[in-house]
Amino acid sequence: QKAGQLFSGLLAMNVVFLGSAFISSMIFNHVAITLADVWILLSILKVLCVCWIICYLLGTSRQPHAVLYRDSHAGPIWVRGSVLLFGSFSILLNVFQIGYSTILIQCKSRVEIVFPSIEIVFICTQALFLWHHSKDCIQVHHNFTRCGLMLTIATNLLLWLLAVTNDTIHMEIESQLRNDTTSCICPNTTICKVFQKGYILLYPFNTEYCLVCCSVLYVMWKNVGRRISHHHAPHIKPKFKLQGVVFGPLLGTATVIIGICVFMVYQIQATGSAPNRQVFVMYYSYYIVLLPLMSVGAVIGTIIHALEKRELDTLKNPTRSLDAILLMGAALGQIAMSYFSIVAIVATDPRDLLNSLILSYSVLLIFQNITQNVFIIDGLHRQPFVAATEARHRGHARQHTAASELPGEEETTTSCKQEHTQISPGKEEEMKEEQNHEGYDQRRVSMLELGQEIRKVSLSYIQSYSHLSWKRRALREISFFLVLCNIILWVMPTFGAHPVFENGLEKSFYGYSTWFAIVNFGLPLSVFYRMHSVGGLLEVYVTA
Amino acid sequence: QKAGQLFSGLLAMNVVFLGSAFISSMIFNHVAITLADVWILLSILKVLCVCWIICYLLGTSRQPHAVLYRDSHAGPIWVRGSVLLFGSFSILLNVFQIGYSTILIQCKSRVEIVFPSIEIVFICTQALFLWHHSKDCIQVHHNFTRCGLMLTIATNLLLWLLAVTNDTIHMEIESQLRNDTTSCICPNTTICKVFQKGYILLYPFNTEYCLVCCSVLYVMWKNVGRRISHHHAPHIKPKFKLQGVVFGPLLGTATVIIGICVFMVYQIQATGSAPNRQVFVMYYSYYIVLLPLMSVGAVIGTIIHALEKRELDTLKNPTRSLDAILLMGAALGQIAMSYFSIVAIVATDPRDLLNSLILSYSVLLIFQNITQNVFIIDGLHRQPFVAATEARHRGHARQHTAASELPGEEETTTSCKQEHTQISPGKEEEMKEEQNHEGYDQRRVSMLELGQEIRKVSLSYIQSYSHLSWKRRALREISFFLVLCNIILWVMPTFGAHPVFENGLEKSFYGYSTWFAIVNFGLPLSVFYRMHSVGGLLEVYVTA
Repeated sequence: QKAGQLFSGLLAMNVVFLGSAFISSMIFNHVAITLADVWILLSILKVLCVCWIICYLLGTSRQPHAVLYRDSHAGPIWVRGSVLLFGSFSILLNVFQIGYSTILIQCKSRVEIVFPSIEIVFICTQALFLWHHSKDCIQVHHNFTRCGLMLTIATNLLLWLLAVTNDTIHMEIESQLRNDTTSCICPNTTICKVFQKGYILLYPFNTEYCLVCCSVLYVMWKNVGRRISHHHAPHIKPKFKLQGVVFGPLLGTATVIIGICVFMVYQIQATGSAPNRQVFVMYYSYYIVLLPLMSVGAVIGTIIHALEKRELDTLKNPTRSLDAILLMGAALGQIAMSYFSIVAIVATDPRDLLNSLILSYSVLLIFQNITQNVFIIDGLHRQPFVAATEARHRGHARQHTAASELPGEEETTTSCKQEHTQISPGKEEEMKEEQNHEGYDQRRVSMLELGQEIRKVSLSYIQSYSHLSWKRRALREISFFLVLCNIILWVMPTFGAHPVFENGLEKSFYGYSTWFAIVNFGLPLSVFYRMHSVGGLLEVYVTA
Repeated sequence: QKAGQLFSGLLAMNVVFLGSAFISSMIFNHVAITLADVWILLSILKVLCVCWIICYLLGTSRQPHAVLYRDSHAGPIWVRGSVLLFGSFSILLNVFQIGYSTILIQCKSRVEIVFPSIEIVFICTQALFLWHHSKDCIQVHHNFTRCGLMLTIATNLLLWLLAVTNDTIHMEIESQLRNDTTSCICPNTTICKVFQKGYILLYPFNTEYCLVCCSVLYVMWKNVGRRISHHHAPHIKPKFKLQGVVFGPLLGTATVIIGICVFMVYQIQATGSAPNRQVFVMYYSYYIVLLPLMSVGAVIGTIIHALEKRELDTLKNPTRSLDAILLMGAALGQIAMSYFSIVAIVATDPRDLLNSLILSYSVLLIFQNITQNVFIIDGLHRQPFVAATEARHRGHARQHTAASELPGEEETTTSCKQEHTQISPGKEEEMKEEQNHEGYDQRRVSMLELGQEIRKVSLSYIQSYSHLSWKRRALREISFFLVLCNIILWVMPTFGAHPVFENGLEKSFYGYSTWFAIVNFGLPLSVFYRMHSVGGLLEVYVTA
């Protein structure tokens, strides 16, 4: 198994390096390696991936005993949903590109219509594949499947890298704004303008799509050949319910509404010819009020987690490990950008009003990212309330069937194993509790006969339960609030508010091209971070 | 424990990001952030590290029950030796820098003498600390120690980053060669020339020193608070012995001698004003002959490993995990450079003699790195022959004392547990085998009484033993040969043979500054890779 993983990993590494070298060569030597060369390489890779996916759909997955097990943690509905959503946006983007190239066919080569068509086929096939098979733990054709998955991951990574580094379209549009005399000027038809605007608007979704696909494919790769006990029935999984939270949604909705107002004012003012200074002050003030609130929420949540003493879930779970790594990794983009800003401001003039705002914004952003990461990762490692007993059963079953790490399992399985295996969370638990109460009253006589012992245990059980209740409520309020905050912080940069580039401070300090490279690397990661945080926080909300 | 690791890791991350932002600012905006600013930041960090190390040496490590356990895998002698060796070279480097600055005091600021002095103190303290305490599993002041270690790691990383990106000294010397009219011209005294030459020669060792320290400190950080069973006595560790290998050393020595000749010719020819084309042909031909030999050796070694069916050592071992990651990570530098070369050559003219040589050199280098990595990592995960039973005992003891993952332990501990616990490897094993033979003859009568069963087992045991013998011999020959090859491949770039820069092909393709950045990133990593491979191969040799 290790050999197969190593081999397929090496394959992916080589493909990624070759592609990166191609893309870098295109950037640094436009003449020898053109964008068309890079597109040819990527199209070959895409065709190979599509072939493999078709093989998988028609061959591998239909073999007898191919998919005996499915990983219930892999590919949750919000991830598969975002694959579909971003996939459709990416297809739309390619349609727009085809339309745009068709209008300007006199100055564009014909391949600029061929490549987007291949891209559309690739996106469709991949989205279909991920929608139906992201939970598979395939048991046949191990090495072929691993290599195919790794090839698809490498292709997605390269598409992401190209999307991040390739700014030709922006250059083209910018040069048109400056009324340069190029042969490729969009004729003043509405349809051309729509294609152009749509392209710019949809562009970020394409980069998101690549990253999300990579993460799903990686989990599938980890799951190749994995055996999971059948004891784990998926219907026990806690479901999303809105009951019992008040302040989180209220405060969050207010934040979102204010955020949308700020964003709209910003977009109208800042994209004009001469950006107003006040609009930056407004934008950064909004963040400076919001970020401490979010940080405090995350810190309180972490403290509650520590107080709760709920059992840690130490079962092997590739999805969760990847989630933690992705959160940490994606946060690095934002943190790196913030540190670059801090150094630039401290070196220029930190006493200016706008500069001091940007400075505090950067510091707060670092703090917020770190506290939120700690809160989410901490939350993901807690056992969900009802799944606790069930997880233990699973754990035992796994100990018999396959090798797995369960340190100290023997010590923790002494209590409450025979009770509630089939209940679901939230309200139903409280109902259960009340039933317990009634039963308690009815069987009082027999209880007395059983002595003080059981009474004590039962009382302490109820007491701890009501104790947990306020903690659970607080956790839900906090995570719901953070979900809404992260959504607005995700929407703003996605739809074009990039003050980090438009304020001009860092741009003049580091020079245009350097700062452009830093932002091009950091911004897509920070957008991905917000999206991924929303997913993680929803999970924390559901399991709290 | 996890919380402490997370917190100290975040501390290090923030320090590294702040420092990187500083260093990048210095590169992209010489005016606002000068080299002196970066030096001030690094000096503050160094002083903090030295304070912490003194605290550790005088306070933490002298507390009762501070160091109950020592990790025998951590800080092997060759690593500590290289810390001392590179540390002394780095001190010498700083002495040269102080001397050079003293001679040119009229045009240099006084801080250029202060900073190297702080650096010397830092290197001395750190080398002393690592020499004595690299095996510690500290049991007190967990979080303070973790933070201190992480701060020291961050400082070393930043020093490495600065050393890799800072080329002022080379610029200065280059401008002197071009006879520019700067105020800082080295007077034509011997001492000044010696300082200059020595500086250039010793520079690479400083970067190596930082990386080696980082890796040792990281293992110490992983070992904070770890508990290890006392059963594991260090004297069972296999020792380095030269007996039984012939072809490996012979072939390796020949390689080294030819390599030194090639290197000397290259250095004389290529550093002249107009590098000769033939010297490059010679240099690359040497590599093209050597690399396939090494690859074939590594592949054969991997096959033998697979044939041997020796038990895999699945015990937790931070040193080994780090070794594998470092090998893979450091190889990426070389592989990235090779891919950049390949793309540049294919895009220019692959049919030219020199270009086709460089092309095959690059492809072979990628192949060699990958096969060697697979061979070493595979070898590191095998149980040493004699340690096999002992490791099992340790495994059992650990199961009782602390939580650890030992999948399938119960299934594998059925055989030969009572035999040879105190023997040591190599020749002694063969003696043991002969003793078994003698005993076999003497006790023949009683053997017959015990029936065919035991006889069969014994025969198959001896047979498998003699089978292993040729495999072990082959493994030792191969690893010894690879050790010598890696040494020569390490010496050549370390002492200044950088054909990847001097042949001018990639330089003209990517542009000077881009290629300089790529080489500055890739070359130190590839040098580190060679050094680290030597260590890994020695371990494979010893345990084979």
